Amino acid sequence: MRMYDIILKKRNGKELSTEEINFFIDNYTKGIIPDYQASALLMAIYFKKMNNRETVDLTKAMLNSGEILDLSKIQGIKVDKHSTGGVGDTTTLVLAPMVAALGIPIVKMSGRGLGHTGGTIDKLESIKGFSVELTKEKLIENVNNIKMAVVSQTGNLAPADKKLYALRDVTATVENTSLIASSIMSKKLAAGCDAIVLDVKVGQGAFMKDLVSARELALQMVNIGNSLGKKTVAIISDMNEPLGYAIGNTLEFKEAIETLKGRGPSDLLELCLELGSNMVVLGKKAGTLEEARKMLKQTIINGSALRKLKEFITMQCGDASYVDDVTKFPKAKYVKIVKSQQEGYVFEINAENMGVIAMELGSGRSVKGGTIDLSVGIVLNKKRGDKVCKGDILAYIYANDEVKAQKAEKDILENYIIGENYKKEIPLIYEVIK
Amino acid sequence: MRMYDIILKKRNGKELSTEEINFFIDNYTKGIIPDYQASALLMAIYFKKMNNRETVDLTKAMLNSGEILDLSKIQGIKVDKHSTGGVGDTTTLVLAPMVAALGIPIVKMSGRGLGHTGGTIDKLESIKGFSVELTKEKLIENVNNIKMAVVSQTGNLAPADKKLYALRDVTATVENTSLIASSIMSKKLAAGCDAIVLDVKVGQGAFMKDLVSARELALQMVNIGNSLGKKTVAIISDMNEPLGYAIGNTLEFKEAIETLKGRGPSDLLELCLELGSNMVVLGKKAGTLEEARKMLKQTIINGSALRKLKEFITMQCGDASYVDDVTKFPKAKYVKIVKSQQEGYVFEINAENMGVIAMELGSGRSVKGGTIDLSVGIVLNKKRGDKVCKGDILAYIYANDEVKAQKAEKDILENYIIGENYKKEIPLIYEVIK
Repeated sequence: MRMYDIILKKRNGKELSTEEINFFIDNYTKGIIPDYQASALLMAIYFKKMNNRETVDLTKAMLNSGEILDLSKIQGIKVDKHSTGGVGDTTTLVLAPMVAALGIPIVKMSGRGLGHTGGTIDKLESIKGFSVELTKEKLIENVNNIKMAVVSQTGNLAPADKKLYALRDVTATVENTSLIASSIMSKKLAAGCDAIVLDVKVGQGAFMKDLVSARELALQMVNIGNSLGKKTVAIISDMNEPLGYAIGNTLEFKEAIETLKGRGPSDLLELCLELGSNMVVLGKKAGTLEEARKMLKQTIINGSALRKLKEFITMQCGDASYVDDVTKFPKAKYVKIVKSQQEGYVFEINAENMGVIAMELGSGRSVKGGTIDLSVGIVLNKKRGDKVCKGDILAYIYANDEVKAQKAEKDILENYIIGENYKKEIPLIYEVIK
Repeated sequence: MRMYDIILKKRNGKELSTEEINFFIDNYTKGIIPDYQASALLMAIYFKKMNNRETVDLTKAMLNSGEILDLSKIQGIKVDKHSTGGVGDTTTLVLAPMVAALGIPIVKMSGRGLGHTGGTIDKLESIKGFSVELTKEKLIENVNNIKMAVVSQTGNLAPADKKLYALRDVTATVENTSLIASSIMSKKLAAGCDAIVLDVKVGQGAFMKDLVSARELALQMVNIGNSLGKKTVAIISDMNEPLGYAIGNTLEFKEAIETLKGRGPSDLLELCLELGSNMVVLGKKAGTLEEARKMLKQTIINGSALRKLKEFITMQCGDASYVDDVTKFPKAKYVKIVKSQQEGYVFEINAENMGVIAMELGSGRSVKGGTIDLSVGIVLNKKRGDKVCKGDILAYIYANDEVKAQKAEKDILENYIIGENYKKEIPLIYEVIK
């Protein structure tokens, strides 16, 4: 078998066999197939696509390229959640305690990644003492005890994906559904869960800009999960405006705590209930989604989710008193108020640009290993459909640099579109794919 | 400017600017842009193509990536000829002496290359003493004296093409007209000629299998040449059966000598007259093609072309007596006769497979720098349209290995298709593009 023939076959629009896909992934991981042949194949895949069978095989090959975590010593059905990424998305910090409070084991493996804000582990590290480095034994012990742990990615999970992703990133071959789906799923499956709930974001602040491509990605990922023996459900949710009000690390963490205290934004709560009820059903703690939803609401009303969050923070050496007194979180030096200069209804808030503005304030990494400022960001005060008068507060800017804060004010005003009326009805949840 | 954006732009089907093409070629030649980004761009070009402007710019950038030979000290209009490659094609050895005999300076720069048989310089080296290594000064002196020289490629001509071609070869990105045209033309233009006649072969023994793609390639190359100030003409000629009778290095050389003696195969002679008359017109030695053709025929009749060949061989230290006594050429140990087992008309001779059979006898290189056996090959006795009776000689095998000769006999019989009648009229020359 020769890599040349595999490139030629895909270039000519033919279906690659399981053996060909395995040959490529095995030898690419080992460094036998050079990057320049891999990138030619990736570009051919971009144009000629892969069918479901090829996509499943590619995922399996990448999954098998490294270690697959053995979490079989954790009791219960381990349900994982994954989001394709949006702006102001702090669902994990709300959802994990709620679901864990119902007895479903949650093992969240998270990266630091690049983006408008840090990842879940960056946010958690804003709590004094909190540690995301657990041995595998300690991880299993914690989850068996309190049903929840969040750790930074350990082990050599799906190294083929790591190598391929880095190559796709510099060769303009990221945007292919099969490549995206297999990348996400190989990592998820290597992390040792039993079932997966996917939050596929769609809209101008998401990677998938339209419903057709979001649906295609969701279908591919659900097919991969189910084909490889893990029950998988995908929720397609809106990302045309930021989720919740907060954009920024500790700002989002505080919003998550508020939500667990019953005072959170309705869209964030609703998305958590939608994702969570699917997790609870997959975790076999409820027979129906309605039942699961009621149980989840109860974890907020009776305080069990908030207690779970504190229990989890304590278990990972963090200071849980931050949850009761959120003023303990790192604070920004300046808070600047952004006031509306018009009257009308909020017609649109450009989610992607809001993310960029927060990032420019310091909330995200632009290079791998870069530092982030946990305290800065934006908290919106008005969202899509809200009525505003001239002088009303649209948003608050949290900054440690006055010049940056001034620039952010100007940028935020440009990205709030105020109209005479608001008629559009954009749903939060578009579809559930099983 | 970033290579990533250039890949993305072409992937999305957009036209690359002159600056972008120059940026790519400059930085790729210098090793700043890595192979894996170049191959991704090549695959994107394969799918999204380049227009005429981009193709001319690409050629120019590759041409300017290295040395451009300065042959201005050679008197007269230097006309070069290039063939896209076929089986049994020995036109250079016939054509160059004919055209040079009419006073047109011919500087032929040839490679050893890979193929069914060696290149022109391999063939010439079968003559004792012949040298293809001339200094630039000696080359200019020879051409000014006798109008003809054949040398192995010297200098650092179009290094970008060399590097890109090697990459295309292993990433299944060879088959794109713009890439093929710019590769050929950048090398030709770097060799310092004033005008170019191209022989674009079409058919089952050629790289271009159909007339549509051959015409596309011819048009692109003619456009490049003319756009960069060198008058260029392309002849589209048939390569569905081998040209002439001989396939193999010294066998083809001997056929070329026979042709110059007025006893050559009619198809080979006709192609030489067609290509040659265009060269003579471009070289301004005749006003019309008809006149040029008459003059060329005269070089055979009056022996001036044959004398030119001997003069040229002598000038490059070779033993010109080989031309008068062709038994001096290296000879194969075995000559095996292939007899027809059927009666009818030769309906088809698979040119590509005939080339492969000769190569298996040892006439070509399969790896760069490999050795070739100059004496072996095939001489056909019957060609397309010829009537054959059972027992008639179809071909002669020249071999240095009996086992290989036996295999070749079987293979040749399989590739001679004998039909009940012969009706097809396949032209030798399809089109002339200026």
